[in-house]
Amino acid sequence: MVDVAVNGYGTIGKRVADAVALQDGMDLVGVAKTKPNFEARNAVERGYPLYAAVKERADEFADAGIDTAGTVGEMLERAEVVIDACPSGVGAQNASMYDDHDVKAVFQGGEDDAVAERSFNASANYGDCVGADSVRVVSCNTTGLLRVLHPLERDHGIGKVRATLVRRGGDPSQHGRGPINDILPNPITIPSHHGPDVRTVMDVDITTTGFKVPATLMHVHSLNVETEASRAEVIETLEDESRVRFVEPDDRVSSTAEIKEMMLDEGRPRGDAWENMVWRDSVSVEDGELYLFQAIHQESDVVPENVDAVRAIAGTADRDESVRATNETLGI
Amino acid sequence: MVDVAVNGYGTIGKRVADAVALQDGMDLVGVAKTKPNFEARNAVERGYPLYAAVKERADEFADAGIDTAGTVGEMLERAEVVIDACPSGVGAQNASMYDDHDVKAVFQGGEDDAVAERSFNASANYGDCVGADSVRVVSCNTTGLLRVLHPLERDHGIGKVRATLVRRGGDPSQHGRGPINDILPNPITIPSHHGPDVRTVMDVDITTTGFKVPATLMHVHSLNVETEASRAEVIETLEDESRVRFVEPDDRVSSTAEIKEMMLDEGRPRGDAWENMVWRDSVSVEDGELYLFQAIHQESDVVPENVDAVRAIAGTADRDESVRATNETLGI
Amino acid sequence: MVDVAVNGYGTIGKRVADAVALQDGMDLVGVAKTKPNFEARNAVERGYPLYAAVKERADEFADAGIDTAGTVGEMLERAEVVIDACPSGVGAQNASMYDDHDVKAVFQGGEDDAVAERSFNASANYGDCVGADSVRVVSCNTTGLLRVLHPLERDHGIGKVRATLVRRGGDPSQHGRGPINDILPNPITIPSHHGPDVRTVMDVDITTTGFKVPATLMHVHSLNVETEASRAEVIETLEDESRVRFVEPDDRVSSTAEIKEMMLDEGRPRGDAWENMVWRDSVSVEDGELYLFQAIHQESDVVPENVDAVRAIAGTADRDESVRATNETLGI
Amino acid sequence: MVDVAVNGYGTIGKRVADAVALQDGMDLVGVAKTKPNFEARNAVERGYPLYAAVKERADEFADAGIDTAGTVGEMLERAEVVIDACPSGVGAQNASMYDDHDVKAVFQGGEDDAVAERSFNASANYGDCVGADSVRVVSCNTTGLLRVLHPLERDHGIGKVRATLVRRGGDPSQHGRGPINDILPNPITIPSHHGPDVRTVMDVDITTTGFKVPATLMHVHSLNVETEASRAEVIETLEDESRVRFVEPDDRVSSTAEIKEMMLDEGRPRGDAWENMVWRDSVSVEDGELYLFQAIHQESDVVPENVDAVRAIAGTADRDESVRATNETLGI
Ligand SMILES: NC(=O)c1ccc[n+]([C@@H]2O[C@H](COP(=O)([O-])OP(=O)(O)OC[C@H]3O[C@@H](n4cnc5c(N)ncnc54)[C@H](O)[C@@H]3O)[C@@H](O)[C@H]2O)c1
Ligand SMILES: NC(=O)c1ccc[n+]([C@@H]2O[C@H](COP(=O)([O-])OP(=O)(O)OC[C@H]3O[C@@H](n4cnc5c(N)ncnc54)[C@H](O)[C@@H]3O)[C@@H](O)[C@H]2O)c1
Ligand SMILES: NC(=O)c1ccc[n+]([C@@H]2O[C@H](COP(=O)([O-])OP(=O)(O)OC[C@H]3O[C@@H](n4cnc5c(N)ncnc54)[C@H](O)[C@@H]3O)[C@@H](O)[C@H]2O)c1
Ligand SMILES: NC(=O)c1ccc[n+]([C@@H]2O[C@H](COP(=O)([O-])OP(=O)(O)OC[C@H]3O[C@@H](n4cnc5c(N)ncnc54)[C@H](O)[C@@H]3O)[C@@H](O)[C@H]2O)c1
Repeated sequence: MVDVAVNGYGTIGKRVADAVALQDGMDLVGVAKTKPNFEARNAVERGYPLYAAVKERADEFADAGIDTAGTVGEMLERAEVVIDACPSGVGAQNASMYDDHDVKAVFQGGEDDAVAERSFNASANYGDCVGADSVRVVSCNTTGLLRVLHPLERDHGIGKVRATLVRRGGDPSQHGRGPINDILPNPITIPSHHGPDVRTVMDVDITTTGFKVPATLMHVHSLNVETEASRAEVIETLEDESRVRFVEPDDRVSSTAEIKEMMLDEGRPRGDAWENMVWRDSVSVEDGELYLFQAIHQESDVVPENVDAVRAIAGTADRDESVRATNETLGI
Repeated sequence: MVDVAVNGYGTIGKRVADAVALQDGMDLVGVAKTKPNFEARNAVERGYPLYAAVKERADEFADAGIDTAGTVGEMLERAEVVIDACPSGVGAQNASMYDDHDVKAVFQGGEDDAVAERSFNASANYGDCVGADSVRVVSCNTTGLLRVLHPLERDHGIGKVRATLVRRGGDPSQHGRGPINDILPNPITIPSHHGPDVRTVMDVDITTTGFKVPATLMHVHSLNVETEASRAEVIETLEDESRVRFVEPDDRVSSTAEIKEMMLDEGRPRGDAWENMVWRDSVSVEDGELYLFQAIHQESDVVPENVDAVRAIAGTADRDESVRATNETLGI
Repeated sequence: MVDVAVNGYGTIGKRVADAVALQDGMDLVGVAKTKPNFEARNAVERGYPLYAAVKERADEFADAGIDTAGTVGEMLERAEVVIDACPSGVGAQNASMYDDHDVKAVFQGGEDDAVAERSFNASANYGDCVGADSVRVVSCNTTGLLRVLHPLERDHGIGKVRATLVRRGGDPSQHGRGPINDILPNPITIPSHHGPDVRTVMDVDITTTGFKVPATLMHVHSLNVETEASRAEVIETLEDESRVRFVEPDDRVSSTAEIKEMMLDEGRPRGDAWENMVWRDSVSVEDGELYLFQAIHQESDVVPENVDAVRAIAGTADRDESVRATNETLGI
Repeated sequence: MVDVAVNGYGTIGKRVADAVALQDGMDLVGVAKTKPNFEARNAVERGYPLYAAVKERADEFADAGIDTAGTVGEMLERAEVVIDACPSGVGAQNASMYDDHDVKAVFQGGEDDAVAERSFNASANYGDCVGADSVRVVSCNTTGLLRVLHPLERDHGIGKVRATLVRRGGDPSQHGRGPINDILPNPITIPSHHGPDVRTVMDVDITTTGFKVPATLMHVHSLNVETEASRAEVIETLEDESRVRFVEPDDRVSSTAEIKEMMLDEGRPRGDAWENMVWRDSVSVEDGELYLFQAIHQESDVVPENVDAVRAIAGTADRDESVRATNETLGI
């Protein structure tokens, strides 16, 4: 039994907490939040021990009628592994606190690569991370890229990769984020940081460019990969990947919103799409170049990766065992 | 046991079918769809007998590998009550077919008042509809207005009502609908049709004005009601209404997107908000006028009303029994 | 000749500077900006003496190849009146600097009422402001309300006013502002500050409620006013107001975007709509209550008011002279 | 003097009419519209003879108080060249009418290639179109691609081109078009039609993929071009192109909305950006591959091309003369 704490209970943290709570070999010892709100109330309703992330603001929870089990330090006392799901940059500030409490740590992609011993992706480098003191689960977009590129490289070898990332401006409930009516090449200098981020995990020649657009549901990638594989071979490889799912022609699904609708219809919690959603009709190979479109659900694709990351650093399972267990419990 | 069929399996139809399937005294004998897609596949996965709504297009289902149980006529043979959830205007075209098959019918708010014997709202006029051959569940916005106005009238009496409706441009997956970046007073002539629609069910002096804006999640109403009731009395009345829910200050929820996030966190199917969501902090009474803001989830607030409408016209329960049963099964 | 400086050269500042530059009796002695960008370059191209608003950042202009005429203090030395168009709250910080340089000041609606001797609207209280040391031009929304309410009160008398303001989330180029897909009752507590802001200029019984939506082009108001006037009388009154313009049925204009398109077609600089745009078809009177929809171009409706405010505090013209001159030069 | 008529007076038609009216060697004999609205009124205010495009609806203009000069047939009697700016597909229906009236025709990119003798782009194939009976100005996106690819091919030679097009969902005032909150790979099958459309004018190995997003202002392209040219050489080539403009680092412009703001500040009619707007900071060359971002103003980039197309088919100027004249009159 691995005792797991989740520090930072927002978009990623609440999903990861739910996933951890479903695992046989893990015990969710607590989640920590900075402020009381509907999410804090819901954590309590789900039976998660709730800790105040900021000691000075602990009273706010009592004022809001929400019981806490203590403050973050106490939570860390009870944990062997902490999953940090704080906003970008806060994880790095928390790192020494985790060291002080002698807990292993899983960070998120909003942190710099240097925050942890290794960057992590279940498909690409699980083995390298076994037993590490800390790992960083790469970002939603990087995770999405690796899930396709790693198996293609493994099965067929790939050459140059060019990817254009059309990114959502903010998550659905982040009403403070824009743009409202605009398209931003982002960053304007090429390449974007996603290519280098892929290379923290996998050796590949990749250039990425990115956009930010006024949508909240998912990112979408236009991928171009030099490979000798045929269309059929590419599809066969990707069909074997449990975290890549094809959007089928008969689904008649032409957008990210329809994918989310389909997930909700399927009864997925929060309508999450944990897998890369690859349009089968988009997969095409011409003159040694593969093209495809995939939609990436930024709020949830890293969730199974976080669970696997815990097993990797806790050393409680090898990759195949872990991925299988994670997938089964989530329903992938 | 009432045998119920759902004709038109889209945004409203699929939710109503799920709700019917949960009722003790109802049997969902089938759902009818015009074209195969992910929703058709999901209906089959949920175990609902699927019928082709358009005979000529029945083959498309087979081509897409989806088994059907026949065509809509056969479905109607098996039903005592049909819930029509076809696009606006199609219900009226279907009416004679329902007559021919001698099934009672529940229509939706996209149809004219004249389509059915009576317009229906569980709170306001359930009793009037018992035993009718057909009813029309009023639209999402009208339902939202009635749920607040009827109890206030009943408990305290109300005078003039003025409501401004800020309406979503389209449902989340309707990517063909706009506007993208615009605000439309809609209709430009005042009043909008919502006031008259309220009066098909309840006698009240009401003027409504409406807007269309580039958002997909919920409508929001700004309500102004002349009444002698105090703030405390208004709140007491609304707290007693099972289909009115308060957004609490401690929820720290300031938008429709945060309401939807809260619903998803609570595990509601499809993140549905069946109740009117009234911001408690917005309720204020000054000089005999009540003001409040409420958010209305267009995709789901009429769902419990449809279930109650079936019981009303089938004559299988009185209002309180029906509302209680519907609420319990859905989890309201 | 009044020497006028504009401090803060953004959305409002650049428009006001252009308007001042067009006036016979005014000399635009300079505009001040914090940072060099395309707007700074354009100020220079228009022949406006450009000053660095922040001494420490003056070098940035040189680095960007943009010539400045000095820093803000030097600009104020040359001015009799400064128009402060800095972001909300910065104006208040600047007030003592204006005092020190002994220049009269016009502030914007983002500041508190207390920033200036009086709040200002040309239609409603020009006379009260003549000779003042400082005034605050009320916000875009408040200006829009006053332009309709003041003449109606003057000509016919009005009772209770209820207004719902559907506000744009950000200006067109503010890509950092949201929401992307949401509707916010804003503020949630009722009333919004717009009613009280109206009362800083005019004595009237008014309650306002507000929304924020994902649109950038204009605000739209749904107005309800108790009055004895008939529809024809209301229209006659408003037709006499030079800064109220009717959107005509034959224009076939049903949205804010179409109004902006019409302004661009008419060759208005930046497509500005300086006037309240009232849909004629929306004007209706029933049982002593007037209803109407008006669109308010947040970026420009206060521009003519700023010009008039200069004349008022400089004491160089009475209201009618000023309004006529401003309108003529702008092309209203 | 070439007598030019514009049939279809919408987004493209009204801009092209304005541009034609500015040319020394052209006479705008009329514009034709289907229905009276603010644009029709504006055409009259600009002094353009206005014709009813649909005979049966001619009365509507009179009813709306708008004088017409006749119907479209009469307009064509007076013209040597007609520019068809009707909605996609309507141009093809009009072709025989133009033949019957023996007028040369310029069609738009919404039509199939087969509608005209040749597809046209001033930079790429002006010479091939001289004296033709009809040409089709390629679409906004294709025009944007050609303006960069043709000079690069001419000066340096290029290899494979890969382009991702992030396309606006609708024009600013098209409030009926979506999506509101979605991203659509569009089409889902790869490649999109833009590559083949480029090849109707220029021989190049190109694959394009496209997206549709909820924005109205401009398209943005992420371009990848195999070439031996250095960054400096690419920039030199593009700086020589009058219809390519660099967005400069000192402009501090990071989005399409800021580009439009810059155009409005510069006093461009309707804020039009006739040129490709290439971010200088985005231009990068690595391992023989050029990358860059460019924004394309869909409403106006084809306007100068239409003017040149008239001169080409009328045979009144060679390419350099025409481009120079068009640029000068517009202010490019
Ligand atoms: N949202 C996404 O799309 C996404 C996708 C992949 C990775 N990530 C990464 O995951 C991390 C979390 O992102 P998110 O979107 O969940 O953010 P979020 O803002 O939704 O949640 C962060 C939570 O942390 C809390 N918090 C803030 N400071 C804290 C502190 N000192 N201690 C404990 N809790 C604190 C906040 O109150 C909030 O509840 C970031 O590194 C982000 O880059 C986000
Ligand atoms: N979506 C809302 O916000 C909302 C809210 C309240 C009421 N309503 C009303 O509910 C009704 C349904 O609306 P919706 O939003 O669910 O529409 P929808 O478009 O999501 O679903 C309609 C379904 O009916 C199917 N259909 C079309 N023609 C049919 C036919 N002849 N026979 C059988 N099925 C057919 C369509 O394929 C589709 O699956 C309308 O009257 C609408 O006004 C909608
Ligand atoms: N934009 C609107 O819709 C609108 C409408 C009416 C009133 N207002 C009010 O007008 C004022 C200006 O708003 P805006 O929209 O033009 O803002 P803005 O952000 O577009 O422009 C403000 C400008 O001031 C500059 N600035 C910042 N600090 C400064 C300083 N210390 N000295 C000089 N310049 C400084 C900024 O660089 C910017 O160029 C605010 O009070 C606002 O509330 C805005
Ligand atoms: N808007 C763009 O982004 C864009 C860019 C480049 C090319 N185009 C192409 O230009 C053409 C026009 O597009 P638009 O955006 O200007 O369309 P639009 O809808 O804005 O304008 C078309 C005009 O033609 C009128 N019209 C319709 N039927 C007519 C008929 N039979 N006779 C005369 N007029 C008629 C309409 O009333 C309207 O005024 C299309 O081929 C389109 O693909 C459009």
